[in-house]
Amino acid sequence: MSLIFACQDVPPAPWIAALGKALPEAEIHVWPDHGKVEEVEFALIWGPYAREMKRFPNLKAMMSLGAGVDHILEQVDRPMHVPVVRLIDPGLKTGMVEYVLYNVLRYHRRMPDFEQQQKKALWIERSQATPSERRIGILGLGEIGLACAEALNRLGFDLIGWSRTKKEILDVGCFYGDETLKPFLSQSSILICLLPLTPETEGILNKATLAAMPAGSYLINVGRGGHLVEGDLLDALNSGHIAAATLDVFREEPLPKDHPFWRHPNVTVTPHIAALTLPQTAAPVIADIIERVRAGRKVPGMIDPAVGY
Amino acid sequence: MSLIFACQDVPPAPWIAALGKALPEAEIHVWPDHGKVEEVEFALIWGPYAREMKRFPNLKAMMSLGAGVDHILEQVDRPMHVPVVRLIDPGLKTGMVEYVLYNVLRYHRRMPDFEQQQKKALWIERSQATPSERRIGILGLGEIGLACAEALNRLGFDLIGWSRTKKEILDVGCFYGDETLKPFLSQSSILICLLPLTPETEGILNKATLAAMPAGSYLINVGRGGHLVEGDLLDALNSGHIAAATLDVFREEPLPKDHPFWRHPNVTVTPHIAALTLPQTAAPVIADIIERVRAGRKVPGMIDPAVGY
Repeated sequence: MSLIFACQDVPPAPWIAALGKALPEAEIHVWPDHGKVEEVEFALIWGPYAREMKRFPNLKAMMSLGAGVDHILEQVDRPMHVPVVRLIDPGLKTGMVEYVLYNVLRYHRRMPDFEQQQKKALWIERSQATPSERRIGILGLGEIGLACAEALNRLGFDLIGWSRTKKEILDVGCFYGDETLKPFLSQSSILICLLPLTPETEGILNKATLAAMPAGSYLINVGRGGHLVEGDLLDALNSGHIAAATLDVFREEPLPKDHPFWRHPNVTVTPHIAALTLPQTAAPVIADIIERVRAGRKVPGMIDPAVGY
Repeated sequence: MSLIFACQDVPPAPWIAALGKALPEAEIHVWPDHGKVEEVEFALIWGPYAREMKRFPNLKAMMSLGAGVDHILEQVDRPMHVPVVRLIDPGLKTGMVEYVLYNVLRYHRRMPDFEQQQKKALWIERSQATPSERRIGILGLGEIGLACAEALNRLGFDLIGWSRTKKEILDVGCFYGDETLKPFLSQSSILICLLPLTPETEGILNKATLAAMPAGSYLINVGRGGHLVEGDLLDALNSGHIAAATLDVFREEPLPKDHPFWRHPNVTVTPHIAALTLPQTAAPVIADIIERVRAGRKVPGMIDPAVGY
């Protein structure tokens, strides 16, 4: 049995080390090396490699290195009979919770105002809302959205969430379906996008939906760049309707040097680091997926290609 | 019965409103107004007013508007027979937990690096530690230190704490007493100072103790300005031994315009806003203190002037 590691811009060494420990019996190849084609049973993919997997006749699963699988599903010339699995990596969930908490607290506590004041040596206290006075909207209530909701809940924030299908979550005001999207957005003074990217969610953050948010509200996009119509956000920021935005994902990554987001005073850019899949926490999850697929057991994170997550 | 509100730089209107609701039977005066001296039974103090309270013969308690009481205890010409009480305000604890979480996550997730990168439109991922790989030291394990420890614990950080007297706290490696201070500091890659200011803790963050911290570590001071020898921190920052510091409290407040902290690239300054005592959460606590003092019951937050907290 061999596993192929086909991941763009990911240094393979720590992965080879961690996978070697978690899967001592497996042979591991780093793309474009692949050893004997008939021995490749599993692939770990990040980037446009799914179509290349057609050459492996015994491939049993394509695993995404992250929580998103859009980079695999968009390759419709991939081997369509091979199941696609996303990693439900506890390290990745931890990272996303940290990033979301950090950015919610940054806006909640008006830290951008204090950053500006420091530049001018200005000592001005600002009025402060309590967390229960701050309503936060979570767009996408999957594994990660739920973990973020729990962490924000413990800090006392007032939470609402939106999902495509009906969910019921303790202490979260749940909205579902297209017709509730605008009422949900109209109450979200800080909006966190944690949706998967599918044809239904592409461009979901656009002129009309941004306009539905309260005046002076904040956006945190940790979903995918494709969720956001970038020019519409710039307009909403420039009019002041959206006070500020933190963006970790972009339509083009790396974000081009001349993109206006880099220099906008009310945009915070991070280079797709909200949640890194860490070899030390992900390798045991990968080993578990492989064991389950081989035994024909239920696999957590198995994708339904019809819905896209 | 009347209550006097003697607080420097605190707009009284929201306090009058909140106290009026919580104590409908009390008369409230804003210093220097005080009505009939013999009717003043309680004082709410922030700033150098304790000595002025000698004129009220029936004063039963002096309450600090915040968690610190150093501004009262340092006035040794105050009416020494009157008990001093600090507010254990849930809103204040909430605020401090938010501020500490925000700043720990900022350093843990290397956000200052990403802030610098954005200025240059640089897209560079950075390696990321897991929270269990990050040991955080909490200096001071009182009510607020404990609340911060709990919140950081839930995020998976590796926690140690130091206090003057022995404490035992689940999932926190506890150090106590002077001789353990340096071993404690030597393991704190992010140090949070939450101590009360007393003669024993004055200047506790100095050349020797900062040198005991690991190279490249971070300091968050939310105790009092008097804990820190400011020149020693500047030296430790300039040598790179301390990577960065976030300071909310200073020896002189407001921090003077020409103070080097304002312009140091690795110092974050906030204007003593880590935990604001909010009228809406504090007024019921004040009402409870008054009721307990009048009934001769145990008062949470009562100060022992011999230890200073």
